[in-house]
Amino acid sequence: MAGNPERRAALVDAGIEVLASEGARGLTFRAVDARAGVPVGTASNYFTGRDDLLRQIDTRLHTRLAPDPEVLTGLMRAPKDRALVTALMRDLMRRVTRDRTGYLALLEMRLEATRRPPLRDSFTTSARGELEYGMEFHRQAGLPGGDETVAVLYLAMLGLLLEHLTLPGVLDGVLPGVDVPDGLVERMVARIVPAE
Amino acid sequence: MAGNPERRAALVDAGIEVLASEGARGLTFRAVDARAGVPVGTASNYFTGRDDLLRQIDTRLHTRLAPDPEVLTGLMRAPKDRALVTALMRDLMRRVTRDRTGYLALLEMRLEATRRPPLRDSFTTSARGELEYGMEFHRQAGLPGGDETVAVLYLAMLGLLLEHLTLPGVLDGVLPGVDVPDGLVERMVARIVPAE
Repeated sequence: MAGNPERRAALVDAGIEVLASEGARGLTFRAVDARAGVPVGTASNYFTGRDDLLRQIDTRLHTRLAPDPEVLTGLMRAPKDRALVTALMRDLMRRVTRDRTGYLALLEMRLEATRRPPLRDSFTTSARGELEYGMEFHRQAGLPGGDETVAVLYLAMLGLLLEHLTLPGVLDGVLPGVDVPDGLVERMVARIVPAE
Repeated sequence: MAGNPERRAALVDAGIEVLASEGARGLTFRAVDARAGVPVGTASNYFTGRDDLLRQIDTRLHTRLAPDPEVLTGLMRAPKDRALVTALMRDLMRRVTRDRTGYLALLEMRLEATRRPPLRDSFTTSARGELEYGMEFHRQAGLPGGDETVAVLYLAMLGLLLEHLTLPGVLDGVLPGVDVPDGLVERMVARIVPAE
């Protein structure tokens, strides 16, 4: 395997763009080479196969979509109440909206996982890890509610992210006076997370 | 346009299978003909183009995934409380699990909608219609909670359907003693829907 880390990262990012714009079926080494602007055959020197590329894309997306440590530290100075949970969820929403391509690629990977058992297994491990990390973070920070709160909030946020990224007009104005996504996130948290 | 309604329905159902198994990019008239086992060129006699086929798939999926009127009538004999909301959500979950192919096709259409504005517009109209119908149904039936309850429950169910259909192992056993999906649906409703 070729070892230039910058080129590898550029190829993985090109793979993310291909996934989001062409769908999983469009993700070929040739398409990745073209998107990255490198000679045909380059990607095949960096990945053992398509599953290897998909796994590296998954890892990269977890980094790309992760919270900014400084923003997180700033947020965590606030009292550990429901308002802080709202702020954390709004920050997640902002990160996803800013890297729309990255999140659309993750959604494509979910659907591709239904067709490829090895991808489903590795993707399940990383998504489960994220959920368990969220539960642990919530507990350690002393935020209100337990694992069940985090699980329900995780599902509602997953639904909101899917809807807002694919069909934003469905939610727009459906609750008068509640703006999307910020107002809706606040209402969601108010229903799901106990007051303290 | 050719007019045999049974053949049209068979072609639309074949399109749904192609979407779920190959992804949106695999959806060509040729693939639909092959899946339906009809001569090459048949689909092009029934649909004006790919967007027309996608619209007809959307309409068909709303019928395929709709509640069974008898089941619904039976459920609606119960008191109009939170337990009834749980039963209705479990019924939705059952329908989607039974027609997994249909729901995966809907998810493919959402992603395809991000690339095709005409599809996004028609799909937004039908999805918004479903959400508003849900709000109206909830109100007319006298179920607990208002439009905001329905909107938050809709998003949490959307997240649960996505997770359970694509990466079921993420939720499995994450809350000890809560089975997926039935137990989790009950916990979700208990958090989101007011007691009365």
